[in-house]
Amino acid sequence: MDNILIIDRIKSVIGSCDQFTPLHIPIFDDREVELLSECVESNFVSSVGAFCDRFETALAEYTGAKRAVLCVNGTSALHLALRVAGVESNDEVLIPSLSFVATANAVRYAGAIPHFVDCERDHFGMDPLKLREHLQTIGESRDGLLYNRETGRVIRCVVPMHAFGHPVLLKELTSVVNEYSLKLVEDAAESLGSFYEGKHTGTFGECGILSFNGNKVMTTGGGGAILFNDEQLADHAKYLSTTAKRPHKWEFYHDEMGYNYRMPALNAAMGCAQMEKLPKMLEQKRALASRYEQAFAGLDGLRFLTEPSNCQSNYWLNAIVLDEPNLEQRDAILEATNSQNIMTRPVWTPLHLLPMYADCPRMDLSATEEVAQRIINIPSTAGL
Amino acid sequence: MDNILIIDRIKSVIGSCDQFTPLHIPIFDDREVELLSECVESNFVSSVGAFCDRFETALAEYTGAKRAVLCVNGTSALHLALRVAGVESNDEVLIPSLSFVATANAVRYAGAIPHFVDCERDHFGMDPLKLREHLQTIGESRDGLLYNRETGRVIRCVVPMHAFGHPVLLKELTSVVNEYSLKLVEDAAESLGSFYEGKHTGTFGECGILSFNGNKVMTTGGGGAILFNDEQLADHAKYLSTTAKRPHKWEFYHDEMGYNYRMPALNAAMGCAQMEKLPKMLEQKRALASRYEQAFAGLDGLRFLTEPSNCQSNYWLNAIVLDEPNLEQRDAILEATNSQNIMTRPVWTPLHLLPMYADCPRMDLSATEEVAQRIINIPSTAGL
Repeated sequence: MDNILIIDRIKSVIGSCDQFTPLHIPIFDDREVELLSECVESNFVSSVGAFCDRFETALAEYTGAKRAVLCVNGTSALHLALRVAGVESNDEVLIPSLSFVATANAVRYAGAIPHFVDCERDHFGMDPLKLREHLQTIGESRDGLLYNRETGRVIRCVVPMHAFGHPVLLKELTSVVNEYSLKLVEDAAESLGSFYEGKHTGTFGECGILSFNGNKVMTTGGGGAILFNDEQLADHAKYLSTTAKRPHKWEFYHDEMGYNYRMPALNAAMGCAQMEKLPKMLEQKRALASRYEQAFAGLDGLRFLTEPSNCQSNYWLNAIVLDEPNLEQRDAILEATNSQNIMTRPVWTPLHLLPMYADCPRMDLSATEEVAQRIINIPSTAGL
Repeated sequence: MDNILIIDRIKSVIGSCDQFTPLHIPIFDDREVELLSECVESNFVSSVGAFCDRFETALAEYTGAKRAVLCVNGTSALHLALRVAGVESNDEVLIPSLSFVATANAVRYAGAIPHFVDCERDHFGMDPLKLREHLQTIGESRDGLLYNRETGRVIRCVVPMHAFGHPVLLKELTSVVNEYSLKLVEDAAESLGSFYEGKHTGTFGECGILSFNGNKVMTTGGGGAILFNDEQLADHAKYLSTTAKRPHKWEFYHDEMGYNYRMPALNAAMGCAQMEKLPKMLEQKRALASRYEQAFAGLDGLRFLTEPSNCQSNYWLNAIVLDEPNLEQRDAILEATNSQNIMTRPVWTPLHLLPMYADCPRMDLSATEEVAQRIINIPSTAGL
């Protein structure tokens, strides 16, 4: 495969690249400053304020969740989601090895142990069939709980992550989750605006989390949220996110260990402005993906990553995928594109290969290790 | 004592109180919106950006610290400060029982155990003499470490908190810290702008933390920072605050468990604007305190809390202090003032009285329990 050809195909979509083209940048107009200004004028810029309520309502409406609870970022949202979903110290939590490190970190913050699951080779989400086989081998159901026969620990929860915005095989996964009485918490950090059979990602399990980091579909500077279908879980999450302070006109009384995880109203104000343009940004991102798809059609040795069937993806990060794992070739393409002002990057180093997670329980992760040598993300900003 | 008299004295300082007077609100003008707007236009609103660097530089310059590292809030700053100061899982950390719950929570996030220390009765900071006596009784020095004879755990660190902005007895405390080879981490969440013998609080030990929550002297919506005199510790804290990602042009490699604790540039932009008016706000707050001091002079049964000798306080929260502990009287004053549109509040419930910290190691905490029945915070916004 000719790297020049790849660069030409990218340029045919995004233009000449005389200037550096980042992977993903936010889109702002006057509206963000308008609402930030309104927030400052209201004096409520911190953990309480109308913009927090307004942003939560907008998120719940858009995603179809009963409630959204704002957090300071996606990582804190996942930590809190795991806690309210019932993850306890020394539990095991099934997470993809192919994810950003925050997925594993949040499990550790909750005092639990990541247990790594392999991905399927089409869209790189958690492989439900392989997960079922693995649980058949190492799992032991007792008193309504699933135990890991090898470690003796409870396997409490499954956290699929919708990589690059493409929904995982939720139907098949939910079936495994139910079969083994597990809790489902979706890491939808990358998939705001992505739907599986018409239903928004992050709304299929106990709860799901979103991220509004600067590189995401929309941003609040830093921020995240948890989506709930259960009011009580949502109330508990909000309570824990605001130091678990019991409501009282003046007393400071906290009855469990809480967190300072509430998104400031200042950031929520930016979120409200971004929400207004979310549909348009998603439209632009899907149009960009469609142009990439055409540009890469018929090219030997690689494919452009398209959305799974029955799904509508936000195409957060576009990707080209080599037919065969080839680290040398992957890095040559990364070198060539980056040196030509086109920012590209590989997928994350699989989490089981990071030193602090090397000793965690896992299944066979051969697909993850292969896939990590095949993926290259390409510029994906809305409106490119 | 007559509650009407107290209300009159407060009104003589802050005015008629036809409208609700909050305890502490932020002061903004056009400058905040100007810098927020500049930040949005730059497109760098998230974890990287010129405003992060600029705010860090301004904080280091103002406090005299060698480095400041921004965090998402004061709680995360304290968690990270403890980690880089060497606090390990199952260590004990000496903290005041008279503090906001975040002080204890941060110790728990680090996997360590709060060990509660009593306060002195003048300014309610950690009591260094009582601490020394306690360590003489329960401490055992071995291999350069201090062990708690009763629990067998290492006592690693002391975290004094400068309550309401008034510096603790740092000289006496530092002497105990040195005597027992402990680490000193200052919780200066409330004391930006407070100096002990001319040196800014938070710069006396391994590191110190600040908070820019909405109720603090200045705000970034939500935010915090760690002050360092040691470049390497600062680098490590910044590294950990940004998921411990190793610098590389495209690879995602993390070599320890990090956090998503970096303050977004959007919030830092607000911080830059607030820093510009900090000196003026401090001046106004000190003038307000001085007016309160005069108004309460000569009143029987209580005193207005003034700054310790050799210190300059930011007077974050003004307080009146009953001569004798009297919960009934305290609550009557709280009722009377709040019902008259004057927001007042008591000090925090002592941490050893909260259910999740009830079993933590502690010394005699009689001063803390007394003092908690004597303190009433009164409106303290700059410019009142």
